[in-house]
Amino acid sequence: MKLLEDRIRAEGKILPGDIIKVDGFLNHRVDVSLLRECAKEFGRLFDTSAITCVVTIEASGIPIATVCAEEFGVPLIYAKKAKSENISDNVYTSDIRSYTYNKPVTLTLSKEWLSKDDKVLVIDDFMANGQALSGLIDIIEQAGAELVGIGIAIEKGFQPGGANLRAKGYNLRSLAIIDKADESGFVFRSQE
Amino acid sequence: MKLLEDRIRAEGKILPGDIIKVDGFLNHRVDVSLLRECAKEFGRLFDTSAITCVVTIEASGIPIATVCAEEFGVPLIYAKKAKSENISDNVYTSDIRSYTYNKPVTLTLSKEWLSKDDKVLVIDDFMANGQALSGLIDIIEQAGAELVGIGIAIEKGFQPGGANLRAKGYNLRSLAIIDKADESGFVFRSQE
Repeated sequence: MKLLEDRIRAEGKILPGDIIKVDGFLNHRVDVSLLRECAKEFGRLFDTSAITCVVTIEASGIPIATVCAEEFGVPLIYAKKAKSENISDNVYTSDIRSYTYNKPVTLTLSKEWLSKDDKVLVIDDFMANGQALSGLIDIIEQAGAELVGIGIAIEKGFQPGGANLRAKGYNLRSLAIIDKADESGFVFRSQE
Repeated sequence: MKLLEDRIRAEGKILPGDIIKVDGFLNHRVDVSLLRECAKEFGRLFDTSAITCVVTIEASGIPIATVCAEEFGVPLIYAKKAKSENISDNVYTSDIRSYTYNKPVTLTLSKEWLSKDDKVLVIDDFMANGQALSGLIDIIEQAGAELVGIGIAIEKGFQPGGANLRAKGYNLRSLAIIDKADESGFVFRSQE
């Protein structure tokens, strides 16, 4: 998606340790009008006519997933990290390792809000190693729900998350795949 | 706001310890079309013509603040809880006590995204004791930004957060104020 690639080129920052910062428009400070364009693009990439919900992971996935849920006319559901006392024991859980925080966390999602009758579009802002996403897929499979597709705004193509999920046959589409990021700038994967 | 009060009456749950659960439509599983109506109502309650951003706190404030930011044509900024390794030391911080998790947490917001030139509308989904909100106000004051108003979807009127903030002169408006919640149901405060 050219609009997103242009924005990454203009405002994305590359930090030591292959960390790519896009917190001026995608997370932390969020350009919601850009997210609306991303949602429309996901609407072209996926058959959203039959989905029953958009599912994401707190916290940085929530803005884009919120806009997608409204765009497709379905509820937004987000998995939480760690366990809140406000959530009953009636939850799906999956243990993951957080790349952002470099520590183990548990994803939780209430069994009340996801069941075998659901057709799920997963939306997230970012994918690197895909740890969090694998945990979310685990939860969706525990629920017996159908995973229609996975839409990612920015994929770090030089890390293994995307390749792993595609090899397993998931319908993964990323709006921008960064294959290389160094002092000479960003290189994006060609996508038709 | 009658639409929201009706939804709380229909789907809200009252748990021991004065915990009110609205996670079937406001947090966890989110009805974004309801949030759009909330955003329009905030647009009537506040002068949004001059605001430069909508600011909230992760995670449950993000959906409603995302919709408000789009509605008012400004960026969404959210304060984070605890410290991510992806955030530089160049952040405002405020120590609060989380009601949800019953432990101390630190709110952080990058100095890059909030300055004395900003005119801020704070939006959050829920207010009880107002601890998190007080931390956010602290951060906005550290930045020297102007706090135009505070819009809350649901305020627990029988807890002191709202009264404290109004006594300090903040322009706080809540779409639904629950003055009582027990086995006989919800009692909402009359607002013109």
